Amino acid sequence: MSFLDLLLGKPLANWEERGERIGPVAGIPIFGLDALSSAAYGPEAALTILIPLGVLGVSYILPVSIAIIILLTIVYFSYRQTIDAYPNGGGSYTVARENIGAPLGLLAAAALLIDYVLTAAVGISAGVGALISAVPSLLPHTLAICLGILALITIVNLRGVREAGAVFLIPTYLFVGTLLTAIGIGVVKALAAGGHPAPVIAPPPVPAATAALGGWILLKAFASGCTALTGVEAVSNGVAAFREPTSPNARKTLAAIIGLLILLLAGIAWLVKAYNIAATDPGASGYQSVLSMLVAATMGKGIFYYVTIGSILLVLSLSANTAFADLPRLCRIIALDSYLPRSFANRGRRLVFSEGIFVLAALTAALLVLFGGVTDRLIPLYAVGAFLAFTLSQLGMVFHWRRVRGPAFRRNMFINGLGALVTGITVLVVLVAKFIDGAWITMLLIPAILLLMYAVHRHYGRVSEEVADSSPLDLRHFRPAQVVVPIERWSAVAKKAILFALSISPDVIGVHVECEWTEQLKKEWQEFVEKPVQELGIAAPKLAIIPSPFRYVSSPIVDYVIDLQKKNPDRQLAVLIPELVERHWYYYFLHNQRAAMLKTLLYIRGSQRIAVVNIPWYIE
Amino acid sequence: MSFLDLLLGKPLANWEERGERIGPVAGIPIFGLDALSSAAYGPEAALTILIPLGVLGVSYILPVSIAIIILLTIVYFSYRQTIDAYPNGGGSYTVARENIGAPLGLLAAAALLIDYVLTAAVGISAGVGALISAVPSLLPHTLAICLGILALITIVNLRGVREAGAVFLIPTYLFVGTLLTAIGIGVVKALAAGGHPAPVIAPPPVPAATAALGGWILLKAFASGCTALTGVEAVSNGVAAFREPTSPNARKTLAAIIGLLILLLAGIAWLVKAYNIAATDPGASGYQSVLSMLVAATMGKGIFYYVTIGSILLVLSLSANTAFADLPRLCRIIALDSYLPRSFANRGRRLVFSEGIFVLAALTAALLVLFGGVTDRLIPLYAVGAFLAFTLSQLGMVFHWRRVRGPAFRRNMFINGLGALVTGITVLVVLVAKFIDGAWITMLLIPAILLLMYAVHRHYGRVSEEVADSSPLDLRHFRPAQVVVPIERWSAVAKKAILFALSISPDVIGVHVECEWTEQLKKEWQEFVEKPVQELGIAAPKLAIIPSPFRYVSSPIVDYVIDLQKKNPDRQLAVLIPELVERHWYYYFLHNQRAAMLKTLLYIRGSQRIAVVNIPWYIE
Repeated sequence: MSFLDLLLGKPLANWEERGERIGPVAGIPIFGLDALSSAAYGPEAALTILIPLGVLGVSYILPVSIAIIILLTIVYFSYRQTIDAYPNGGGSYTVARENIGAPLGLLAAAALLIDYVLTAAVGISAGVGALISAVPSLLPHTLAICLGILALITIVNLRGVREAGAVFLIPTYLFVGTLLTAIGIGVVKALAAGGHPAPVIAPPPVPAATAALGGWILLKAFASGCTALTGVEAVSNGVAAFREPTSPNARKTLAAIIGLLILLLAGIAWLVKAYNIAATDPGASGYQSVLSMLVAATMGKGIFYYVTIGSILLVLSLSANTAFADLPRLCRIIALDSYLPRSFANRGRRLVFSEGIFVLAALTAALLVLFGGVTDRLIPLYAVGAFLAFTLSQLGMVFHWRRVRGPAFRRNMFINGLGALVTGITVLVVLVAKFIDGAWITMLLIPAILLLMYAVHRHYGRVSEEVADSSPLDLRHFRPAQVVVPIERWSAVAKKAILFALSISPDVIGVHVECEWTEQLKKEWQEFVEKPVQELGIAAPKLAIIPSPFRYVSSPIVDYVIDLQKKNPDRQLAVLIPELVERHWYYYFLHNQRAAMLKTLLYIRGSQRIAVVNIPWYIE
Repeated sequence: MSFLDLLLGKPLANWEERGERIGPVAGIPIFGLDALSSAAYGPEAALTILIPLGVLGVSYILPVSIAIIILLTIVYFSYRQTIDAYPNGGGSYTVARENIGAPLGLLAAAALLIDYVLTAAVGISAGVGALISAVPSLLPHTLAICLGILALITIVNLRGVREAGAVFLIPTYLFVGTLLTAIGIGVVKALAAGGHPAPVIAPPPVPAATAALGGWILLKAFASGCTALTGVEAVSNGVAAFREPTSPNARKTLAAIIGLLILLLAGIAWLVKAYNIAATDPGASGYQSVLSMLVAATMGKGIFYYVTIGSILLVLSLSANTAFADLPRLCRIIALDSYLPRSFANRGRRLVFSEGIFVLAALTAALLVLFGGVTDRLIPLYAVGAFLAFTLSQLGMVFHWRRVRGPAFRRNMFINGLGALVTGITVLVVLVAKFIDGAWITMLLIPAILLLMYAVHRHYGRVSEEVADSSPLDLRHFRPAQVVVPIERWSAVAKKAILFALSISPDVIGVHVECEWTEQLKKEWQEFVEKPVQELGIAAPKLAIIPSPFRYVSSPIVDYVIDLQKKNPDRQLAVLIPELVERHWYYYFLHNQRAAMLKTLLYIRGSQRIAVVNIPWYIE
C-alpha cells in the first residue's frame, strides 16, 4: 500500500461514482456547514453594530432578525425551484448563463469564486480565533493551527465526497443538537418566567447608549446580519452529488438546512432580547461572544456549556468545507464551457475534481499566510459576492419560467422574481453599508476575474479553430521526410540512430560539428555507412561537417536544420537525436547534456515541419 | 551587444588562442600572486608560534626563515627541471602519473584540488580580515565583501587569461615594489646604525617569555612558516599558458617569483630581528600585523605606509586568483584522463576552462558562507596538500630522469631527489605539527576525492565499452519500425501525426484511451484514416482502444507500448507524440501536459528499442 493510498484512499473506478453519492443525512454537513455555522456569527455581527444604541439596540435585534429570516425564506423557495429545474446542478452560473446570457453567468461565477475563497479563509480563522480566545496560550501558533485545519479539510475532500460527509457528520449534529437544546430550555424558562427569566449566569450589564437610533445603523445591522445567508447556494450547485432521486434528496437537504438555520436565528434573537444580552466589543478586554453569554445564561457553565462552545468552535473552522465541496464543482462547470483551464473538469483518483480543491487550498493558504491567520479585515469583502450571485440566479429563474412555461409558471415566476428583488436590494444595502470597509475590493476583483475568464475562453477558441479538422488524410503528395542525424563520434549509439534513420527515409544526412574527431569520423562514415549502403544500390547518406570556431555545438546544428527546412519548404524534416540514458540521476554530471540542449533549442526555434526523434540508449 | 558580451567579453574563436598567451610580465601576477602574497603571512605565522619564547623567539625567526628559504631554493631547482621536461604543463598530477603511476598521480591531484579550494577561500578572507582590522566599521559586511571579491575574481578569470594578467598587474607590482623599498631602506638604516637601528615608530615591547625553548616549538614555527611555499607549483602546471618559447618564459617567471619571494622573506626576517619585532596575539586587542609594525618602524606612518599596507590587503585577497588560474587547468588534465567529468576539458567563450572556474567559485563561496567569511580555522588544513603534491611531483621527476637518461641525468636525479626528500620530510613535519588542528580533515578528504575520481573513471570505462563500435552498418535484417500514435480526438494535430507515421512505416497503430470522445473517434478513424489508406491498396492502420477505469491517460499508453514491444522482440518501435507548442509560457496552464508526461514516462520506462518522436504543432 503506497503512501498516497494511505493518505487519500485507493483510486476509485468510474463505475464507483454512483456509490460515492450521498443522501440528506450526509448532505447537511457537506453543503450546510457554512450556512448553519453562520448562526454563530450572523446575530453577533448585527448586535455588534447595534452596541452604540445600548438597551434599545438589543431590542432592535428582533426586527432585524425577522427581516433576515423573511429574506431567508424567500431565498429558500427560490432555490427549491432551481433544484427542481436543474437536476444536474443549477448553481447561479448555470442558471444565469442559460437564461440571461453568458456575461451575467460569468459575473455570478466570478462573484461566487471570490466568495468561496473568502469563506474558506475566514471560516478557518474565525474558528481558530474563537479557540484562541478560549485558550490564549495557543496565540503564537495561530497560523500553524489554521494551516493544519486547512490541510485536514483538503485531505478529507480529496478522499472523496462520501468520506467528507462521514467526517463532518458528528461536529455538525453536535453543534445543532446542543445549540437547539440550549435555546429550547432557554425559551421554556423565559416563557415560564413571563418573558423575564433569571439568568443562571448573568450577562454583563448593557452599556449606556452612545448614539441615537437611525435608519443607517439599522441598515448596517441588517447588512452585517446577512452574512448568515452565505452558503445557502451550495445545495443547488451540488445536486449531482446526491443519490437517486437526486432532486428530492437535494430539496430535503436544503429544507433541513434552512429550517434549522431559521430555528437557530429566531431562537437566538428572542433569547438575546429576553436575557438582555448586548454584544461586547471584540477588540476590548472582557470580550465574550454572544452565544457564550447566551448558553451561560440559560444553562450555566457546566459540562454542557463547554461541549456547546467546543462544537461551535469546531463547526466554525470546518465551515470552510462548504467552499471545498462547491468551488471545485463550480470550476468544473465553468471549465467545461472553456472559461477556465479544462483540467478543472478532470476527476481525480477519488472521483472528486482535485484541481479545484488544490487551487482553493492554495489560495486559502495564501490568504491565511498573508494575514497571519487573522482574517477579520476580509469579512466586509464577502456577502456582496454571495448576494450578487443569488440575485443573478433568481433573475435567471424568472426568465427560465418565462421560456419553459409549464403549470403554475406565473406563480413560479413570482416567487423567483420576489427572490431576485429582495436579494438585489440586499446587494445594494450590503454594498453601500460596507463599501468603505472593503466591499470596493470585491468590486475590483470581479472584473479582473471576468477579464481572465474571457482571455481563457478566447485562447481556447483560437486554438480549437486552428486545430479543428474534419477531413480525411490526403495521401496524394506523399513524400518521405528528410532525416538529419547529429553525430559526434562513431559508436553503437550513432550506428543505431543511422539504422533507424535509414529505416524511415531514403533521404538521410549526418551532421557533424567540427572537433578533434572530425578526420576519424570522415573515414568511418565512408567505410561504415557509405560503403554498405551503396552495396545495396541506394544513394548513400551524406555527412555534413559544420565548422564551429566558437566551440558551440547545439546551435550550429539547429541553424543547419532550420536552413535545410527553408531550402525545402514542401518537405517534412525529422531530426534524430541519439541520447545516452543513465539509470541513475547522479551520472548525468558525467555526460554533456547536448541531446537535452538540442531538443530544447529545437522545441523553441522549431516549426510545424520539424519532428524531433529521440533515439535513447540505456546504459545497463 | 548582449549583457554576457559586456560582462565576459565577446566570444573568442579557436584561432585566437595564441593571442591569449602571456609572457613573464603577466605571468608573475597570474601564477605568482599566491606565492608572493605568502610573504605577508608566512613569517607572521612562524612568529606567532614563537610568541611564548619572548625576545629569544624573535631571534629564532632567522634560523627558521633560513630553513624555509633553503627549502624554497631546492623546490625552485626541482620545478625548473620539471618545466623543461614538461613543456605542455607538468603539474604534480602529470609528472607523478606518467612516472610513478596513476594512483600516485591522482593522490597528488586530490591533494592539490583541496589545497586550491582552501587557498581561494583563505586568501580572500585573509585580505578582507586585514581590511576590517583597518576599517572596523565594515565588520558586519565581512561575508558580503568576501563574496564580492570572489565574484570579481571569477568574472576576471572568465574573461580570459590575458585580461586576468592585466587586472592583477598593478596590485602585484605595487605590493612587491613598496615592500622591497621599505625593506631596502630598513636594511640600509640598520646597517648604518650598526645593526641596532632606531625605529621611526617603535613596535610594542616584546613580552616576557612564558615557555622554554624546545625542538617542538621550532618545528611548529617551521611548519607554520611553510605556508609561504604554497602556490609555487602553479607555474609548472600552467606552462601551456605562456607564449613561445614557452618553457624559457615559464622558467623566467618561476625564477622571478621565487627570487622575489626569497628577497622578501629574508629581508623581513632580518629586519624583524634588527628592530626586535614580536608578533602580537591575533585574537587580542591591540593586534597589529608584523608587516604593519615593520613598515611603521622603517618608514613611519606616512602616505608610503598606507600605500604599502593597502597593497598588502589587496594582494592577499587577490591571491585567490592563483587557484583560479590553476585549478581549472588541473581539472582539465584529469578530465582528459576520464577521472573527472569530461566537461572540465571544454573551453568556454573566452577559451578558458569555464567549468573549473565555476566549480571553484561555487566551492569557495560555500566555504565562505559556511564560515561567515572568517576562515581562520581552515588554515591548518592546507600546506599538507601542497607539500604532498610537491613530494610526489619531485619523486616522479626522479623516475623520469632514470627512464629518459640524457646528459647529466644523475645530477638532475639528485636535484629532484633532494627536493622529494626535503618536501617529504616537510609533509611529515606539517602533518605532525598540525594534525590536531585540522590536518586530519585533509587526510580524510583526500581518500574521499580519490574514491570519487575512481568511480568516475570506472563509469566512463563501462560506458565507452558499451557503446564502442567499429563495424559497418548491417543492413541485412532491415525492417521498418512499428509506429504507435496516441490520439485523443481527431484534429489537424492528430492528422499530421498520422501522416508522418504513414510516411515512416506501413505498420501504424493508433492508440486511444477511452473517454467521452471514443465513439466519435471510432467513426472518424474509419472515415478519415482507414478509407483513404485502403483506397491506395495498403493495409489500413488499426485503432486500439484502451479502457482506463481510473482515468489515467499516460500510463495505460506506456503499458500498451511496452507490452507491444515485448510481443515483437525483434522490432524497433516508434511512439509518435503530437504536441501543442504555445508561444508563451503562461498558456501552458490551459492545456494538459500529457505529451510531456508521456515523454517522461517513456524516457523512464523505455528501452533501446523504443524511439520517441515529437510532432510539434506550434500555435500561431
